Amino acid sequence: MVTDAPERDWSAAEEEIMEATYRALLEHGYAGLSISRIAAELGKSKAAIYYHYDAKDDLLVAFLEFAVDRFEATVATETGDEPTADLEHVVEKLLPLQPDEEQRQLQAVLVGLRSQAVTNGVFREQFTRIDERLAATIRDIVERGIEEGTFRDVDPSRVAEHILATVNGAMYARATTGREGAAAATRVSIASYVDSELRRD
Amino acid sequence: MVTDAPERDWSAAEEEIMEATYRALLEHGYAGLSISRIAAELGKSKAAIYYHYDAKDDLLVAFLEFAVDRFEATVATETGDEPTADLEHVVEKLLPLQPDEEQRQLQAVLVGLRSQAVTNGVFREQFTRIDERLAATIRDIVERGIEEGTFRDVDPSRVAEHILATVNGAMYARATTGREGAAAATRVSIASYVDSELRRD
Repeated sequence: MVTDAPERDWSAAEEEIMEATYRALLEHGYAGLSISRIAAELGKSKAAIYYHYDAKDDLLVAFLEFAVDRFEATVATETGDEPTADLEHVVEKLLPLQPDEEQRQLQAVLVGLRSQAVTNGVFREQFTRIDERLAATIRDIVERGIEEGTFRDVDPSRVAEHILATVNGAMYARATTGREGAAAATRVSIASYVDSELRRD
Repeated sequence: MVTDAPERDWSAAEEEIMEATYRALLEHGYAGLSISRIAAELGKSKAAIYYHYDAKDDLLVAFLEFAVDRFEATVATETGDEPTADLEHVVEKLLPLQPDEEQRQLQAVLVGLRSQAVTNGVFREQFTRIDERLAATIRDIVERGIEEGTFRDVDPSRVAEHILATVNGAMYARATTGREGAAAATRVSIASYVDSELRRD
């Protein structure tokens, strides 16, 4: 099993390429992404990108890792010592109740990238790592809550997998259907799930 | 809101094309699907397909409708008057605990098709309808359970959206990651969710 690996060190040059990739993905979507367009966002030549990444897929795999590193760093900064609020915070980060345009586009991009994982082994491995790390982030909060006595003595892995699957499913539905109410209903139901499964009365 | 529409009548010729499409999708995947390959499975000319469907996308949209009609017909036949068992049955149909090779390939095909819904309005509309109908199937069982007194007086829509999102998320993860244990853990957690949210003590 892959566990939460230490975050990789990103050089300044790599970070700039990742930021440019992010902007290019938001602007052109996964299908319209090219090294030329990333180079245009970066304001450098394509060679500057190929120096770090052999091909578009290598760059995208690195981008996914970069995105999860960022996510974990943000969660580490923004969560505290109140497990219920921390859990709510992570769920809001993954499945915003009222996503802005950028968040919607990012979700759409991620669904496009993730569909490649059906047939592409390298993407599949990366999404395996991503889900492992997200599940670990949720599990850690649940474990902390149990230790502190805020949460009941549940199986932290089971609860973490349940929340991750629910969030992923609602995010997937939001990107691929027009059922806006469904994502909102799911957010309410996750809060209710945390209450009834985890909270001590 | 789209509600559970009556099933469409499929002519024998259409049904044969849908069956051929199913076999071609399992064999070649979404990316490798072509009218020629469907015609080969059908043992007829491409013209026989174009007589019914203008283009590959029309055929695929019809195929998705056909698949949901089949799913609902099966569920209607196989469920009875025991809401807990019926709910379990629907969940097992959507997210088999131990999927065989055909079920795995079908899930992979559906993820490929569904990713098109990010940018293609017609696919998006069809997946909206699909999720609407699946949510309605689950909601009907929950409502029946409440009326009969087996289930608590919960909000049937909220519970249905939660189960659908969880099942969709786990199915999506199964098709795009190597995390086999996660889908199994989610199945266990759904059973536990039904128990704690729905069952009267």
